[in-house]
Amino acid sequence: MRPGVTFEQLIAAKRDAREHSAEEVAHIVAAFTSGDIPDYQMAAWLMAAVLNGLSHDETVALTDAMVRSGRIVDLSAIEGVKVDKHSTGGVADATTLVVAPLVTACGAPVAKMSGRGLGHTGGTLDKLESIPGMRVELTVEQFVEQVQRVGLAVIAQSPDIDPADKRMYALRDVTATVPSIPLIVGSIISKKVASGADAIVLDVKVGSGAFMKTLAEARALASGLERTGEALGKQVHCVITGMDQPLGTAVGNALEVAEAVETLRGHGPADLTEVCLTLAAKMLVLAGRACDEDDGRSRAGQALASGAAVDAFERWVEAQGGDPRVAVDPALLPQSAVTREVRAPRDGWLAATDAESIGRAAMLAGAGRATPDDAIDPAAGLVLDVRIGDRIEKGDRVATVHAATEAHCDPAEAVLSGAFVFAEEPTCPPPLFLEE
Amino acid sequence: MRPGVTFEQLIAAKRDAREHSAEEVAHIVAAFTSGDIPDYQMAAWLMAAVLNGLSHDETVALTDAMVRSGRIVDLSAIEGVKVDKHSTGGVADATTLVVAPLVTACGAPVAKMSGRGLGHTGGTLDKLESIPGMRVELTVEQFVEQVQRVGLAVIAQSPDIDPADKRMYALRDVTATVPSIPLIVGSIISKKVASGADAIVLDVKVGSGAFMKTLAEARALASGLERTGEALGKQVHCVITGMDQPLGTAVGNALEVAEAVETLRGHGPADLTEVCLTLAAKMLVLAGRACDEDDGRSRAGQALASGAAVDAFERWVEAQGGDPRVAVDPALLPQSAVTREVRAPRDGWLAATDAESIGRAAMLAGAGRATPDDAIDPAAGLVLDVRIGDRIEKGDRVATVHAATEAHCDPAEAVLSGAFVFAEEPTCPPPLFLEE
Repeated sequence: MRPGVTFEQLIAAKRDAREHSAEEVAHIVAAFTSGDIPDYQMAAWLMAAVLNGLSHDETVALTDAMVRSGRIVDLSAIEGVKVDKHSTGGVADATTLVVAPLVTACGAPVAKMSGRGLGHTGGTLDKLESIPGMRVELTVEQFVEQVQRVGLAVIAQSPDIDPADKRMYALRDVTATVPSIPLIVGSIISKKVASGADAIVLDVKVGSGAFMKTLAEARALASGLERTGEALGKQVHCVITGMDQPLGTAVGNALEVAEAVETLRGHGPADLTEVCLTLAAKMLVLAGRACDEDDGRSRAGQALASGAAVDAFERWVEAQGGDPRVAVDPALLPQSAVTREVRAPRDGWLAATDAESIGRAAMLAGAGRATPDDAIDPAAGLVLDVRIGDRIEKGDRVATVHAATEAHCDPAEAVLSGAFVFAEEPTCPPPLFLEE
Repeated sequence: MRPGVTFEQLIAAKRDAREHSAEEVAHIVAAFTSGDIPDYQMAAWLMAAVLNGLSHDETVALTDAMVRSGRIVDLSAIEGVKVDKHSTGGVADATTLVVAPLVTACGAPVAKMSGRGLGHTGGTLDKLESIPGMRVELTVEQFVEQVQRVGLAVIAQSPDIDPADKRMYALRDVTATVPSIPLIVGSIISKKVASGADAIVLDVKVGSGAFMKTLAEARALASGLERTGEALGKQVHCVITGMDQPLGTAVGNALEVAEAVETLRGHGPADLTEVCLTLAAKMLVLAGRACDEDDGRSRAGQALASGAAVDAFERWVEAQGGDPRVAVDPALLPQSAVTREVRAPRDGWLAATDAESIGRAAMLAGAGRATPDDAIDPAAGLVLDVRIGDRIEKGDRVATVHAATEAHCDPAEAVLSGAFVFAEEPTCPPPLFLEE
């Protein structure tokens, strides 16, 4: 960076759509993380970056600087290629609960750190914590030891990893600067790289329930993720999946764990099973445990059928202090005191589902957080009975809300009743995969 | 404003180039001024406004809300149309020191409040304070009484006027969000309206020494100023003047006062005299003291020739506690201990002058502030000997630096030596007026 350049001048450069040098980007990240750049200046820079964009080189420099803002986990003690997976956020994404043990059962180690996130319906950690006794706050040393011993660990991201992302995301969240592909790429890839993965499979979701609303946006994000990851020396494969309705039928923490177990036994919903097999196949290829995707898919399918996948799940849960019997008896998971059936107001074909409203209904039932300090009810959520394309008669059950009290069911039911669009004509189900 | 709209949503709306309602803009200004909107959120909104713009209606709403953020001065006790003038900032603008007494001498009351500003070479208040005894911190009541008694007062803007502008400008200054025509319009017009003027003449400067670098920008600013002022019920006339070199020859506080006195006696530099007569003529028309601009110009010219203008200056200075004898004996103004002559390094025609460097040289000599807390040396500055288009021989004096010490002269001389561009061929002097 040229000597004497002030941060005001760097903001002005981005405001005027000029490209920063890698050194300038590294300075911005380091100085913001250390508190030398105040929030009000960073907010102005972030808005300029959202509106004028960041080039590929700037995005790589941003991501690299974020990685270097904290600890970089060393997984070299674990043999083999360590493959991570990540979804770009949508309603009710339980794929990690299925894919991680499935891949482990096929011989690839999975060492995954997960962020807490502030989603409508909780994140992976909240789902895991609904299993009685399950601990996600492990040290990095415990984490590595567990992967060596049982082949799989999923823990909360250690706070000393990627502090730049934490500070930057907190500011973006309150300054309307979240929707920027380069900033999203930096946030995702930096966390994965700092967590020590060798290769990453990314599930980019698109649709009404996802952050990316159009296929064009999803493609741009996928391209940014792959190019940036590769520039930092990591293999990155993306798949673009539809999120016009939630995957599977369960939305809520313990409800999704129960559904994941069903899926690991080979009896899960077709869409959830299909996405999990595809993600697992890609991970197995990257890990060198399958020669191609067809082979990976076939190996993953065998692991479901043979019981190896559910066995891996049990060993994993037990290793993290959880009760492995939940894989046999889902009644050991938290159960809601109250259920409420929601019924179709009319006849018709289900033409569309507002996945965002479904997520919000689950949150109102108690499954998610409206603010970061809210407590989650692990038993709360809802189970859907209908999929886009289904024929429905008036009075059919379309969903069941699970909650602690009737008072929690009321707003959830009210939101749900507006979440379904009925048509006179048959509608095709939306595609599960849009692009690989 | 729709109930329940958060400020994050308003930032997102401007990020997405949507238009705010007048109510939303009023809320933003009021909530920011009261501290309910934190600086980091306002900074993001300001950058979105800089990059996506504000519509005419949004600009009017912004300006109106800024006016209403503080006290609105009532000048109705002063008879006649109260006309204010303002320049959009450039190097060494001493026109107020000439125009205000000139217009007063022609029978129009001038009640002007001036901001402190952080210019290279001090603002109008700094120039006035270089006159021994001159006070600019008057109450609004003293201000009105003085205008009634002597026809003219120029004071520091009372701190309870337009607090929104003060807060907003302080944030814009450190977040690279100053260059935005709608935000500049809001800042200028809100202060003028809150200060009680009925009509306003605005001198929009364009060129290397001005904030607006191109005629197109200056035109857009002039149009915004006129339309916004008129939407708020004020007559606004703009004139676009060139600022490719400083007006007049003096740059520095007491030096400019001395030059203003010369100009009021009819012996000032041609360019300064010409701009002052034009601004005065426009003000006299708006004040109803001249039937058209030619008439106004002729009346102003007579006031210079008859001594009426310099008399009005003396009465004004005396009323504010200053020593009126400075109008007769400029040696009563602060004098610098040291002068340094700067000489031409070569033969040639003066093709260009970097007005910004000239301003910086004056600041380094002690005439301005690098930071708001810096003290100003009232005697410091420089006097130019050359104008664009002049033929110059190597060794000719091009400027004289005035400063407290030789050490102050060194950096000023160094900057000055790079401020002149010489050519082999004759160059035309730049036009004084670009558009009215």
